[in-house]
Amino acid sequence: MQTRGRSRVPQCGAIQQAGGGRVAMESAGTSSRDQVVAVVGGGLVGALNACFFARRGFQVKVFESREDIRNAEIVRGRSINLALSHRGRQALSRVGMEEKIVSKGIPMHARMIHSLSGKQSPIPYGKKGQYILSVDRANLNKALLTEAESYPNAKINFDHKLEDWSTDTGLMTFLRPDGSKESLKADLIVGCDGAFSTLRKQFLRLSRFNYSQTYIPHGYLELTMPPLAGEFAMKPNFLHIWPRNTFMMIALPNLDKTFTCTLFMPFDVFEKITSGDQVIDFFQTYFPDAIPLIGVDALKRDYFRLPAQAMVSVKCSPYHINDKCVLMGDAAHAVVPFYGQGMNAGFEDCIVFDEIMDQYNEDFSAVLPEYTRVRVPDDHTIADLAMYNYVEMRAHVNSKWFRFRKNLDNILHFLLPKTIVTFTRIRYHEALQRWHWQNKVINRGLLVCAAGTVLGGSYLLINKTPKISNIPMEKIWDRLLLLKVWQ
Amino acid sequence: MQTRGRSRVPQCGAIQQAGGGRVAMESAGTSSRDQVVAVVGGGLVGALNACFFARRGFQVKVFESREDIRNAEIVRGRSINLALSHRGRQALSRVGMEEKIVSKGIPMHARMIHSLSGKQSPIPYGKKGQYILSVDRANLNKALLTEAESYPNAKINFDHKLEDWSTDTGLMTFLRPDGSKESLKADLIVGCDGAFSTLRKQFLRLSRFNYSQTYIPHGYLELTMPPLAGEFAMKPNFLHIWPRNTFMMIALPNLDKTFTCTLFMPFDVFEKITSGDQVIDFFQTYFPDAIPLIGVDALKRDYFRLPAQAMVSVKCSPYHINDKCVLMGDAAHAVVPFYGQGMNAGFEDCIVFDEIMDQYNEDFSAVLPEYTRVRVPDDHTIADLAMYNYVEMRAHVNSKWFRFRKNLDNILHFLLPKTIVTFTRIRYHEALQRWHWQNKVINRGLLVCAAGTVLGGSYLLINKTPKISNIPMEKIWDRLLLLKVWQ
Repeated sequence: MQTRGRSRVPQCGAIQQAGGGRVAMESAGTSSRDQVVAVVGGGLVGALNACFFARRGFQVKVFESREDIRNAEIVRGRSINLALSHRGRQALSRVGMEEKIVSKGIPMHARMIHSLSGKQSPIPYGKKGQYILSVDRANLNKALLTEAESYPNAKINFDHKLEDWSTDTGLMTFLRPDGSKESLKADLIVGCDGAFSTLRKQFLRLSRFNYSQTYIPHGYLELTMPPLAGEFAMKPNFLHIWPRNTFMMIALPNLDKTFTCTLFMPFDVFEKITSGDQVIDFFQTYFPDAIPLIGVDALKRDYFRLPAQAMVSVKCSPYHINDKCVLMGDAAHAVVPFYGQGMNAGFEDCIVFDEIMDQYNEDFSAVLPEYTRVRVPDDHTIADLAMYNYVEMRAHVNSKWFRFRKNLDNILHFLLPKTIVTFTRIRYHEALQRWHWQNKVINRGLLVCAAGTVLGGSYLLINKTPKISNIPMEKIWDRLLLLKVWQ
Repeated sequence: MQTRGRSRVPQCGAIQQAGGGRVAMESAGTSSRDQVVAVVGGGLVGALNACFFARRGFQVKVFESREDIRNAEIVRGRSINLALSHRGRQALSRVGMEEKIVSKGIPMHARMIHSLSGKQSPIPYGKKGQYILSVDRANLNKALLTEAESYPNAKINFDHKLEDWSTDTGLMTFLRPDGSKESLKADLIVGCDGAFSTLRKQFLRLSRFNYSQTYIPHGYLELTMPPLAGEFAMKPNFLHIWPRNTFMMIALPNLDKTFTCTLFMPFDVFEKITSGDQVIDFFQTYFPDAIPLIGVDALKRDYFRLPAQAMVSVKCSPYHINDKCVLMGDAAHAVVPFYGQGMNAGFEDCIVFDEIMDQYNEDFSAVLPEYTRVRVPDDHTIADLAMYNYVEMRAHVNSKWFRFRKNLDNILHFLLPKTIVTFTRIRYHEALQRWHWQNKVINRGLLVCAAGTVLGGSYLLINKTPKISNIPMEKIWDRLLLLKVWQ
């Protein structure tokens, strides 16, 4: 179990300003002052984790294979904006960054569903007043890197590509752009190097390491919707969704009054569209209301700017090797983006690890196995839920029964795991258990109704001419088979 | 679809003896004579595949990292005997090896279940006269290597460890025991290097390669049951099974009148047994009838000879890279050993590939994608069925409902996929579909019975005092939930 709220580090006033930089807390204890924690990867989770470890007084060395994005012209290959929700905010709050980030995010209070005819219908996320935030990935990463660097005991090394490391000694070798190599021996290596983690490759060589990587048949492509007469082209405080069976487009608002539109489609559909005119035809068929908002010329041009990107779901276990190395964020659990939890789950990893560090007095030999024990089931659950949402989107969206159940679920949305997942820190696997329980109750209710119908029918039948073949058993059975999917 | 029976190579008389060796068939065409097929791995599937490619006239080069097992003293780390069934025999028959191997196998007509009290009850495999064969892994491998070497256009290179290879050029580099390196450029690289395939590592670097490796919590350990007064210590023509909930022991007969007993247990149970006396206590509790047959001293000694071995299930897709490389056998799909299909599935890979080679005139650029398309769903199905049997063994064996269904299944065993899987070449995924269909029929039957009971009950109730709470809806629902597992 996690020990929420047991962190020794109070949430405010914990960091003392000392000149332009910061000093680690006294309460972190002297034992950790000389220990070196190497964080591999300076992305979102790596930079945040650097703050967590720096607060504890460790000598933190971050190694990022790319250049410093704060100096880079273009950052390619990853989505532009992200949905920040409760778990991510809690993690930011622990390092005193919540307000700073939230102030640069745009609240989204509901989804806005765009029908083919252009009709827009909002579906709120949770209770009144609950919202998620659209944040800019690059700005968030830059802010976290700057925050990490403000600790005197933290240093970020860019252009350091991990080449090799030892699970026994913690000795790591990095390759520099000039071909030279650098070595460092760390007491703890924290792998935050993303879905294609270099660090994780050593794990694959170990016996009894469970691992899966699953690419989905869909790819994604990003398009920009510019401001219209200096204002947002659509209502800004919504996550806009164009659900079209196996296609889907979403749009998240940015501070510069643009929207980033993300188009999700099977790769084979992407491959069929090869000319600007075909793009317009395609949008005319499926997303006609978006054409004037994105602009015909921009659409024809931007659609071909980058190839469609792949999406992968990664699950593994254990997350650690001895007392030497631990994986967090996408390196441990890349998820498909259909639950809006990728970054939030990675940020929550940092809190969970931090809480276990308190429980076990920073003894890595106890902390690392406990982290695996506690966190693996939760991360696997969120990976599964995200994949489930993807499969659901593809397979069931046309089924009348599904739509009936979906409406029922929407009426009962306060019971749904989506709310728990998005607006609480209840463990992911507990959210799933509650969902199972909820479905059991609903389905039993439906079964009782069905049985009632059968009973009512049977009463009539028995009192007339009993003909069992008249009972719509086929239909009841089909419903029951569908229920399986929900268990 | 496969094109069973369409192979251009007739099943007998196809190979001409030429002095001590053999020459490739004329019908293989001259185009393939200069093409080099490199088979990585000289285990069961590698050696068999070498025969298949040699028959077609390719220049076949097998590379095995270990020494020649025909000269080796001890072959460690893999199970001693295997169950050969229809699919494996069919593959052997295609290269003229069936009779030779079958003559050295021991038919097993049924499972023999050992109860705790020592009572033995046979459960036949299929129809009368159907049987599987217990064959010695090492002897089979040796025979296949010798067969492959009898082709003048095939050469086996032992002590050649694959170090690197190029997916573009097919250039491979091998490391020799003396530290020297050898290179070879192949037209086709066939990866038969087992569950921990070196070749497969390159696949993991490609985008959109799906991969999973799942270790189960059970390990296995092998023990030998010696002959008793010069004869088999138990009835020889059976696969003996001691089912004990999460533990299980099986025993297969060998030609030297010994049995190889394989004990399957969770690793944590293995770890708790640390002394000879504890071994005897454990066997006294769970397998008392086996103690005198294995022998107290041998049991105390052999139990600690090797650590318990791990079992892994590997699934991946695609099986090929361009027109250059293809994975077969355990390299493509390691399965847990609870369906007796590991080797048989690997051998069937060779037939399926061979049939597609006919269909597409040995054009690797067409054959390889087609092989992936046809074979992946079947291999994934057998991996899932084997894992399903494992999970079933662990989870359901104590459930009364499960035992009821199991008995029903046993009565209807001629419909079961086990028979189809073991005694036909019907595609694995079709066997699964038939099973689903069968379960649907059985379950609908049961539902109709249940509904009949409810109706009957309701008639009584309606004619007395209607009290819906009296209807055992809870129990019906629990049964329906359990049925899910079977769908």
